[in-house]
Amino acid sequence: MNETIVKQRSLLGLKDMPQEEITELLERAAYWEAQPDKLTPVLQGKFVANMFFENSTRTRFSFEVAQKRLGAEVLNFSAAVSSVQKGESIYDTVRTLESMGIDAGIIRLKPIGVLAELATRVKVPLINAGDGNNEHPTQALLDLYTIRKEFGELKGLTVSIIGDVLHSRVARSNLWAMRKLGMNVRFCAPPGMAASELDVQYVTIEEALKSDVVMMLRVQLERHENGVFQTAGEYREQYGLTVERAASIADHAIIMHPAPINRDVEIDDVLVEHPKSRIFQQMQNGVAVRMAVIERALA
Amino acid sequence: MNETIVKQRSLLGLKDMPQEEITELLERAAYWEAQPDKLTPVLQGKFVANMFFENSTRTRFSFEVAQKRLGAEVLNFSAAVSSVQKGESIYDTVRTLESMGIDAGIIRLKPIGVLAELATRVKVPLINAGDGNNEHPTQALLDLYTIRKEFGELKGLTVSIIGDVLHSRVARSNLWAMRKLGMNVRFCAPPGMAASELDVQYVTIEEALKSDVVMMLRVQLERHENGVFQTAGEYREQYGLTVERAASIADHAIIMHPAPINRDVEIDDVLVEHPKSRIFQQMQNGVAVRMAVIERALA
Amino acid sequence: MNETIVKQRSLLGLKDMPQEEITELLERAAYWEAQPDKLTPVLQGKFVANMFFENSTRTRFSFEVAQKRLGAEVLNFSAAVSSVQKGESIYDTVRTLESMGIDAGIIRLKPIGVLAELATRVKVPLINAGDGNNEHPTQALLDLYTIRKEFGELKGLTVSIIGDVLHSRVARSNLWAMRKLGMNVRFCAPPGMAASELDVQYVTIEEALKSDVVMMLRVQLERHENGVFQTAGEYREQYGLTVERAASIADHAIIMHPAPINRDVEIDDVLVEHPKSRIFQQMQNGVAVRMAVIERALA
Repeated sequence: MNETIVKQRSLLGLKDMPQEEITELLERAAYWEAQPDKLTPVLQGKFVANMFFENSTRTRFSFEVAQKRLGAEVLNFSAAVSSVQKGESIYDTVRTLESMGIDAGIIRLKPIGVLAELATRVKVPLINAGDGNNEHPTQALLDLYTIRKEFGELKGLTVSIIGDVLHSRVARSNLWAMRKLGMNVRFCAPPGMAASELDVQYVTIEEALKSDVVMMLRVQLERHENGVFQTAGEYREQYGLTVERAASIADHAIIMHPAPINRDVEIDDVLVEHPKSRIFQQMQNGVAVRMAVIERALA
Repeated sequence: MNETIVKQRSLLGLKDMPQEEITELLERAAYWEAQPDKLTPVLQGKFVANMFFENSTRTRFSFEVAQKRLGAEVLNFSAAVSSVQKGESIYDTVRTLESMGIDAGIIRLKPIGVLAELATRVKVPLINAGDGNNEHPTQALLDLYTIRKEFGELKGLTVSIIGDVLHSRVARSNLWAMRKLGMNVRFCAPPGMAASELDVQYVTIEEALKSDVVMMLRVQLERHENGVFQTAGEYREQYGLTVERAASIADHAIIMHPAPINRDVEIDDVLVEHPKSRIFQQMQNGVAVRMAVIERALA
Repeated sequence: MNETIVKQRSLLGLKDMPQEEITELLERAAYWEAQPDKLTPVLQGKFVANMFFENSTRTRFSFEVAQKRLGAEVLNFSAAVSSVQKGESIYDTVRTLESMGIDAGIIRLKPIGVLAELATRVKVPLINAGDGNNEHPTQALLDLYTIRKEFGELKGLTVSIIGDVLHSRVARSNLWAMRKLGMNVRFCAPPGMAASELDVQYVTIEEALKSDVVMMLRVQLERHENGVFQTAGEYREQYGLTVERAASIADHAIIMHPAPINRDVEIDDVLVEHPKSRIFQQMQNGVAVRMAVIERALA
């Protein structure tokens, strides 16, 4: 198999993925969601390694369910690596697993730029499960899938992404993919949490709520020691999706969140399972989307 | 499937389980123990998650062997959660896994009252693998199974449970189940380790040894900083099953312990594999018992 | 099955293994390497536990891939145990897993002498995946396999093992096995890192490079607080395989390392994937070798 094909089978991000390919993945996810049986062992005899250099219960489990539903053999590796650590130890681990004969690797890591370099140095297809502040393509794909399921059509919808977009790979992957699909993306971020390198419209929280999709991001106040918020309560008051604010959301609109959730910080506890919330549906859809992504890498 | 049936398939405790159902589970465990083949994939295509919010090697492995012998797909989650932590993070994890399509969840956790509430909020059957100081039903079932295998009949047997009954979910599950089955249960506990809320007879260590079943509990002296024992040696001297004390146990009687063992604290090292000890048989029986419990939840 | 046969199926070390048996394992590894399909479920229905009382990503994964390629059910246990801890807790864990019905155990542990005693107390076959400073037989087997693949014949080859041989179970297993196979083994070690109890020739680093196989060991300077090296740089300068030193290695010779690697300490970064290096091939060969070892234990 030549290198071009191998690279096509990796999924490093959505920024450079053609719109048609994104749509194909969404179609294929729908196919997987519609399967009556949980097990469809099309990947029997294939070995997939989940290499999580950054902790994540949710994402790892989602991939693992997807892999097992496709009949693959699963290897789980988990070792938090500091964000300043050199990429060499990550490379050695990935090359080691490649030497042992894995057919694909799911990888999540913190250090910036390491994944892109890694992909040029190993032959096995890599699937990005969270890459620093850069991309988180399967999360964006499951978000798109969830929205499409809700509205039928993606083109023309308005999405507001609210919170710490500066540190958010979810925001970036969604921004790049949604624009390709003809959607209108706005960011709403507190001072110090905006991503100034991105050319995107910023709106107030009130304006952000006037969207078809209100997407809240997890805030990690500990990352912002010198920030404007002294407490989680202050953040909630100014940028959180409170019950009061939620009342102004349009009837047809939906609330999303990539999870894990800080209840009563970026979103009020009672809104997590509100009729407008699609948070747990997002998690459900993640399995089908990841089945499509893994199948593309290996089948 | 209606909610009543779903609840029947969960196993939260033995306190409210009818005697007939306990007996049926023991019969079914005997069926599984008698199988000549290790693999009987009646649960092929079913996904079971082991969600351990409190560490346990032994119990998790026992469930995992049981699940794999039944052909289920297994997901392992392990994250110690402090006993004071709010139940919300546990709920989010369980709901997440439910969203991803698991068919049953095995759960072990410390915070009191969280499991009971959880069971009302999720639809997937839950199996209690250790619930704070409340119940540990599969441990009690494997204890009952071990005793029944030894004596043929449970009714009329006298069991003494010795040690820190205050903190023991094993003692509680056994007490409630054994009484339903016509057994005579006595506790023997040091001052400060008695469970005053339970209506049960307390006996001296000498009297406790005059039982058909002498069940020692693991003691965790670090939980009792202001207790009466300064050292493990003092505990052993007053409440431990020493070689000397073991000599007074009746010929037909057996020694049990839920493990892990503090050798030379609650039980002398050389007694662990004494001819009267059934400690490793308990572990062996645990697999068959858990196969019966998981099958009941899913088949 | 009688005890003699059971013991034959364990693999505790190579020191006492007849030369013919070592050769048979290498032949069988070649058989497994040649299989076109990854899955050959000859061990379907067998349960194997990886019991790692000392951390290791690489070795555990290699065993896990081997086990899954043979169709076995895999249980993973990992809990670092201090080197001074009594063997009893290790024994209890192994006996527990044995009680639960595992068919073989892979074990890695630090405390000296515990494995040998353990093997006399349990009935299940045990495979040594790293035993203190004593033996690491599967590493030596994969080293032999790699060398044989390179040179066709093992007899008469000269191997130099360079570094902290004092603490190296890899050096010991290789020494004992290589001598049986007619190879000439020399050690090269800094003062304080030599294994004085072994009757082996010590050579200078310059002489060591004049070998068919130059095998570098991982150095852990933190183990040698009062040693002669103040820094990793000093170690590299005196005993590291630098680019300059590598230039003097014969054209036909190969470089090996058991990994994980300290890049730019015992071996220069650019040499890890040098044409003479077989480091990642060693990892690749490890899977086939371990398939042979596990098959021997169980089939």
